[in-house]
Amino acid sequence: MTRFDDTVCAPATSAGTGAISIIRMSGPESLRIADSVVRFRTGAALSSEGYTLKFGTVEGVDDVLVSIFRAPHSYTGEDSVEISCHASSYIVSRIMELLLAAGARSAEPGEFTRRAFVNGKMDLAQAEAVADLISAGSEAAHKVALNQLRGKYSSELKALRDQLLQLVSLLELELDFSEEEVEFANRDKLRALLDETSAHVLRLCDSFRVGNAIKAGVPVAIVGAANSGKSTLLNALLGEDRAIVSDIPGTTRDTVEEVLTLGGVRFRFIDTAGIREASDTVEKIGIERSIRSLEKAEVVLGVLDGCVPLKEACKACAMIVEHLSSRQKLILLRNKVDAYDAIAPEEFPVMDRSYGVLPLKYPAFGTYNLDPEALSRELAVCLTEKGIRIPEEFSVLDISARTGEGLDELRSRICSAYSVAAVAGDVTLVTNLRHFDALSRAGADLAAVRSGLDSGTPTDLVAEDLRSAIRELGSIFGEIAPDEVLGSIFSSFCIGK
Amino acid sequence: MTRFDDTVCAPATSAGTGAISIIRMSGPESLRIADSVVRFRTGAALSSEGYTLKFGTVEGVDDVLVSIFRAPHSYTGEDSVEISCHASSYIVSRIMELLLAAGARSAEPGEFTRRAFVNGKMDLAQAEAVADLISAGSEAAHKVALNQLRGKYSSELKALRDQLLQLVSLLELELDFSEEEVEFANRDKLRALLDETSAHVLRLCDSFRVGNAIKAGVPVAIVGAANSGKSTLLNALLGEDRAIVSDIPGTTRDTVEEVLTLGGVRFRFIDTAGIREASDTVEKIGIERSIRSLEKAEVVLGVLDGCVPLKEACKACAMIVEHLSSRQKLILLRNKVDAYDAIAPEEFPVMDRSYGVLPLKYPAFGTYNLDPEALSRELAVCLTEKGIRIPEEFSVLDISARTGEGLDELRSRICSAYSVAAVAGDVTLVTNLRHFDALSRAGADLAAVRSGLDSGTPTDLVAEDLRSAIRELGSIFGEIAPDEVLGSIFSSFCIGK
Repeated sequence: MTRFDDTVCAPATSAGTGAISIIRMSGPESLRIADSVVRFRTGAALSSEGYTLKFGTVEGVDDVLVSIFRAPHSYTGEDSVEISCHASSYIVSRIMELLLAAGARSAEPGEFTRRAFVNGKMDLAQAEAVADLISAGSEAAHKVALNQLRGKYSSELKALRDQLLQLVSLLELELDFSEEEVEFANRDKLRALLDETSAHVLRLCDSFRVGNAIKAGVPVAIVGAANSGKSTLLNALLGEDRAIVSDIPGTTRDTVEEVLTLGGVRFRFIDTAGIREASDTVEKIGIERSIRSLEKAEVVLGVLDGCVPLKEACKACAMIVEHLSSRQKLILLRNKVDAYDAIAPEEFPVMDRSYGVLPLKYPAFGTYNLDPEALSRELAVCLTEKGIRIPEEFSVLDISARTGEGLDELRSRICSAYSVAAVAGDVTLVTNLRHFDALSRAGADLAAVRSGLDSGTPTDLVAEDLRSAIRELGSIFGEIAPDEVLGSIFSSFCIGK
Repeated sequence: MTRFDDTVCAPATSAGTGAISIIRMSGPESLRIADSVVRFRTGAALSSEGYTLKFGTVEGVDDVLVSIFRAPHSYTGEDSVEISCHASSYIVSRIMELLLAAGARSAEPGEFTRRAFVNGKMDLAQAEAVADLISAGSEAAHKVALNQLRGKYSSELKALRDQLLQLVSLLELELDFSEEEVEFANRDKLRALLDETSAHVLRLCDSFRVGNAIKAGVPVAIVGAANSGKSTLLNALLGEDRAIVSDIPGTTRDTVEEVLTLGGVRFRFIDTAGIREASDTVEKIGIERSIRSLEKAEVVLGVLDGCVPLKEACKACAMIVEHLSSRQKLILLRNKVDAYDAIAPEEFPVMDRSYGVLPLKYPAFGTYNLDPEALSRELAVCLTEKGIRIPEEFSVLDISARTGEGLDELRSRICSAYSVAAVAGDVTLVTNLRHFDALSRAGADLAAVRSGLDSGTPTDLVAEDLRSAIRELGSIFGEIAPDEVLGSIFSSFCIGK
C-alpha cells in the first residue's frame, strides 16, 4: 500500500456564498508551508502544539485563522493545518496558489480520507462511510452511514471473519495430522458454525437491496393503464412538499422521476407510461420500459381507474401483478373515487359484472358498486382465473388523486416498509455495491465449503475455499486492498475530503 | 447602540458540495450551549482556553471539531465557537436544531460582523469591507476591500476629521472670547487648512466613480452604427475567455451585458443597439437606450465600420462623441480592416471624400485609403465643422473583430485606465455609496464654512457647519450610527457573516 511522503492541500468547503472558507493541508511539510505562507503574530506553526488555533495574515490576501493538528492526532494521522479565510473564491484561489508555490501539491479527490485509511485512522468501510455521510440526504441514509463510520458495521464483519478463522484453524489442525487420518474437528460442531456464518453472510447480502434503496432513494413505480391518473397521483403526492422536491432527469423522456422524503426516508417516484396490450412497435417500446421500471421498483403503486368496469380493472390488475416478484411491495389503488360522490345513491342501477348494463348517462360508473374489500376479492378471482399468483397483502385502497382523499393512508403504507426506526435499529444494512459483491463471493465460497464437507472433499481443498471467504470479508474493511481498488474507491470522493 | 446579550448561531459555509461545513455561534452562552450539544472527550468547552480545538460527538449526528474563542479574542469580541462537521446539509440542519433547542437563536444576516462592530472589534467602514471582501470577484476589487478592512481607509478619514476638529477648536477659542471681538485664529492659516481638507474630501468624492466601477465592474459601452460589428466585437473580446464569462441579464432585452476580467479588473461590456437618426418611435426608444448606456459607461468603444465612406463614418463618429462627457474614456475603433486585405494595392482607385466615385465592384471600400492617423484627422475636422468638442486622446485604432487583428492592443487600452497597480497603490478609493453620500454632504458643509469665513458670517454659525462636516465623516467609520443605519448596512450581508 502506497505511503504518502508529500504534502497536499485543497479547499474543503463548497465554493458558493458563505462567510468562511477552509483550505486543508496535510503531510509532513504542512506546518512549515503554513509558516512560509502565513505571517503569525505569536510564533511559528512549527513550534505550536496540536489542537490550537493561530491568527495570522496572508500578505496582500487576507487575515486567516489556522488550526494546527499534529500527527497522529489529526483526521489523516499526519501533521495537518486548516486555514480558515473569508469565503471569496478569489481569496481561496490565491491562498491555494501560495501553498502550491511553497511546496504543497493539489490533493486528489478523497486523498485526505485515503491518507487516514493508509495511516490506520479508519478502516476501508469507515472511509467509504465518510462519502456516504456527506451525500446522505435523508435521516435514514444518514443513520446508516453514521453507523458504518462509527465502526459498528466493520465490527460485525470482523466478528464474522473471526468465526471463519476459528473454522479454518480447526481444519488446519486436521491437516497437520492428516497422515493419521483422524478427524480432529468435531464435524457436527464445525457444520453448525459454518451454517450460522453462512446464514449471517446471506442475511447481509439480502440487506443490500434495502440498504441500497435507503442510500440512493427507494424506487417506487407508479403503474397502471393509460388515463388511470398516474401523473395526477404523482403531483398530488409531491403537492405540499413541492419545495423539498427536486427533478431528476429520467433516463428516458418517458420516465419522470421525482424525489420525496417521507418519514425520514427518501423515495424516488417513477411515473410510467400506461400499460396495455399494444399493437404498434413504438407503443410496445414504451410499455416495455414501464414494465422494466416496475420490475426495478421496491414499491409498486398499481393504479386502477375507478371509472372503468370490473372487466377492464381486472385486465389492468393482471398486467401489473404478472410482472411482480415476491420481494416487491404492491399497493393497489382505486383512483377517482371522487367521481362517485356526484351520483345519488337512489340512482345506482342494478349492476352485473359487465359494462353493457350501465346507463349511458353514467359513463364513468366503473366499479362503484363494490367496496374495496369486495373489489379485492373480485380481482383475486380474475387473477386466479388467469393463473396469476395473488400477492401477499392483496387489498385495494380507495383514493382520489384529484381531491387528496386516501393519500395520507397511502403515504403511511409507502413508509411502513422503510421506517427510519427499522433501518436505524440494530439491523446492519449493506449499502455499498463493493461490499455486496465481496459478501456474495464469500457466500459462494462458504457454500462450496459446506458441500465439500458433505461430499468428503480433501480437507486442504475445503480449507482453501474457507480462506477465500476470509479474504473476501477482509477486503471490505481493507485488510487487503491493492492500490487500484483504493484508487477506484477514493476517486469518487469530492476534492478536499 | 443596541448591545447583544443573547447567543446566536448560523451556518458559516456555503451549502454546496464540500468536505467540511462550519456552524458559528457567538454570545455569552455559546460555550455552555456547545457543552450541552457536543459530548467532548477531554473536559468541557466552558473550562477550555481560547484558541484551542476540541474533538467531540453530537450524539446520533456526527463527530465534530469545535474551535473555542474566548471574549474578547474572537471575531465578534464575544465568547464564540465554530463547530466543524461533515459537509452534509442534513447534519448541518440537525446541529442547528440542537443549538436552537439548547437556547441559541438563529443569527440575522451580518449579525456576527454587527456584533464585532458594536463590541469595538472594527469600525463601520471595516465591517462594510468584510462584505465587499467576500463578494470581490477580481484582484482589484479584492485589494480595495482589503485596504478598507485593514483600516487604512478609516485612518485616512480619521486624520481628515482630526484636521476639522483642530479647525473647530480654533473657532471655538474665538467664540469664548467673542465679547472682546478678537480674531484669535489666524484666519489665513485657518483658510489654508480648510482648503486643504476640502480638496481632500472632494478628491475622495471623485474617487467614488472609479471605486464603484472597480467594485461593481467597470461599465464599457460598445456603441456605433448598425452593422458596424459591435456584437462580433463583443464575442471576439469574450472569445478565449468564454469559460470565465457569465451572462448578466440586461435591464432590457436590447442590452446584452457580459463580464470579463482584464488585468485583474472586472469589466462589464454592454452591447447596444445601433445609433443613427431614427424615424419611427420604436427605433427612437432603442437609440435613446443606447445613448443612456453610453452616458453611464466609464469606457466607450466607438465602433466605426471600415467599409462605409468617410462621410458616413464622420456622421457615426459625431453621434457618439456628442454624447460623451469629459470624464469618459473613448476608444475609437475602425472595424472590418480584414476586408482591405482582399484588395490588391494596384487596384486602389483614386478617391475623394465622397462615396460616389467608388467603383461598384468594391462596395465595401469605405475609408481604406486613409491610415488611422489620417482618418483621425479627417474625423476631427468633421467634428469641428459640426461644432462638437474633440475628446482628448482622439485617435483611431484599426481592428478586425472577425480575425482578431488589433484586439490585444484594444484590451490593453481598455485596461490602461484601470490597472490593478493604479487602484491598489496609495490612492484611496471610495467604493461605498453610503460613504460617498456622507463625503458629498461633508464637502457641501466645508464649502459653506469657506463662504462663511469669506463673508464674515458669525463664528458660531461657521462652527456649526464645521461640526456638521465632522459628524458626516464620523458616520463613515461609525462614530455615530443609529440602529436603523446599522440595520440597513448589515441586512445586506449573508447569513453566518
